[in-house]
Amino acid sequence: MTTASLDVIAVGNAIVDIIGRCDDAFLARHGAAKGSMRLVDAAAVVALYKDMGPAIEISGGSAANTMVGVASLGGTSAFIGKVADDEFGRIFAHDIKSARVAFDTQPAKGGAPTARSLILVTPDGERTMNTFLGVSPELTVAEIDSQQIAAAKIVYLEGYLFDRDEAKAAFRQAAAHAAKAGRKVALSLSDSFCVDRHRAEFLDFIRGHVDILFANEAEVTSLYQSKSFDEAATHAARDCKVAVLTRSAKGAVIHTGSSSVTVPADAVSSVVDTTGAGDLYAAGFLFGHARGLDMTTCGRLGALAAAEIISHVGARPQTSLATLAKARELI
Amino acid sequence: MTTASLDVIAVGNAIVDIIGRCDDAFLARHGAAKGSMRLVDAAAVVALYKDMGPAIEISGGSAANTMVGVASLGGTSAFIGKVADDEFGRIFAHDIKSARVAFDTQPAKGGAPTARSLILVTPDGERTMNTFLGVSPELTVAEIDSQQIAAAKIVYLEGYLFDRDEAKAAFRQAAAHAAKAGRKVALSLSDSFCVDRHRAEFLDFIRGHVDILFANEAEVTSLYQSKSFDEAATHAARDCKVAVLTRSAKGAVIHTGSSSVTVPADAVSSVVDTTGAGDLYAAGFLFGHARGLDMTTCGRLGALAAAEIISHVGARPQTSLATLAKARELI
Repeated sequence: MTTASLDVIAVGNAIVDIIGRCDDAFLARHGAAKGSMRLVDAAAVVALYKDMGPAIEISGGSAANTMVGVASLGGTSAFIGKVADDEFGRIFAHDIKSARVAFDTQPAKGGAPTARSLILVTPDGERTMNTFLGVSPELTVAEIDSQQIAAAKIVYLEGYLFDRDEAKAAFRQAAAHAAKAGRKVALSLSDSFCVDRHRAEFLDFIRGHVDILFANEAEVTSLYQSKSFDEAATHAARDCKVAVLTRSAKGAVIHTGSSSVTVPADAVSSVVDTTGAGDLYAAGFLFGHARGLDMTTCGRLGALAAAEIISHVGARPQTSLATLAKARELI
Repeated sequence: MTTASLDVIAVGNAIVDIIGRCDDAFLARHGAAKGSMRLVDAAAVVALYKDMGPAIEISGGSAANTMVGVASLGGTSAFIGKVADDEFGRIFAHDIKSARVAFDTQPAKGGAPTARSLILVTPDGERTMNTFLGVSPELTVAEIDSQQIAAAKIVYLEGYLFDRDEAKAAFRQAAAHAAKAGRKVALSLSDSFCVDRHRAEFLDFIRGHVDILFANEAEVTSLYQSKSFDEAATHAARDCKVAVLTRSAKGAVIHTGSSSVTVPADAVSSVVDTTGAGDLYAAGFLFGHARGLDMTTCGRLGALAAAEIISHVGARPQTSLATLAKARELI
């Protein structure tokens, strides 16, 4: 096994977020389940956009946000995902590359546009996502470079890719390359509704290929159809070497085989927008794990990154996470 | 003279802002004068964008921001400006219409793209703008609807339009329609460098057509090539019925003929991004003036709107200005 030149490489959907505010009645009127991510088609995204209030555009995409978080902590990261040759594609590529994340996937010419997610933030700070995937699922196995995958200590995959067969093949390819190179495979379950749509496949993939699992309470209990968090956690601890289970303000429980640690969440004076909380938690944890830090420190780095992201609009850090982590003597 | 159905209508550049952070050295390296607006061509905007860090996209445009501010205060407003039939054009139209500002200018088909401004915010909160006007100057006199102009109590024009002859004709047309209908004409000088480029034309236009002039200290001293603010203010008071002269943290001086009032700036705990400060000051003032409020109250509404806008990133309000103004018993 050669020395890894990257801390983490991720495969995910390349998305530009369109973030606006709304009240609970707006969500109800549009049949959107608060806190969830749902896929919408081109016509639905136009109709919903027309009805929503003023918005701002910020690069997003779950695993892409995580890679930007790793880079902000001082780590080396790369992202593989598909954009179109359009304005949003240029925005996505600019933002991730200028955040010092390697991004070499070529934009698709013609066809579907770059993916966008209409994100509605309610007064409680909770975000509800309506995603039009556009060109994103057109990522092919040919674009998963085995050498690039083998160059990273950890390959990180977002569960949202399970929603499209085309992308799922690329996803499995990445896991196979990582295993062959002796690297670790990490997976985020992404969303409880996504888990519900693909439960059997998720379980099969986790048991066969995943070293590090990220899930929140709703996702892990949905995955195992458990009655309680503790019951689901027991299953997760059995199925993966490391299970990182986040519980919002209650902090996170990290299981490694038969042992576990609980790491509290960081206090946040005002939760502005929860978009990216899970993504950035994963960023902190993965950076710490790639650098060989203990589980508690990995969890504290996750909590620190998540706290930064929910204190402002958007899922990309506005402050250097490395500076914050150094001030707390975590790195 | 028929009853006006709108408080204010504006003619300006329709722009999407691309806002990122940089240090002073970055500005120096790119030859950008801190705090200014400069026009850049298509190639320069690509090169500068490539070099700048991660950014977010928010609808902007000086007079457009002002109209959104008037609407946020509960006023009725409209905007005339040119976008292209592209992604940024759709973003601009969505954001201004969903903010309840009437916007009926048809997008241009083919040709130049929608205007964008690369806005670099330094750690002191100051913004430096690099604007590619794209399709914006293609606004023609045919698109200045005399009936729509006559329907507003005040027509508001941004000085930036003086930078392009095509737009300037539309600008003069709007002033002529307003005068004919017995409405007031307001002008913002926009930028001291813009004033410097078009001093004689500005003076001629102000003396012939402007009832209400908005200028900051640098702009008004540049306009009259004065040695002091007081000297410039004396000239401005002579040339317009109302001269609203803003001095950042020092507040504003409002001259009406031989009398004047000084209105302090609102305290802001942290200046995050000064983009839109002047635009929103004008919004507060114009709303108050259209509603027949006294000069001090108009100035206080301006100060309130400016304080809201500089406390976050972007030049569109994130909080209802009407709610803020009611809490202060200004409206």
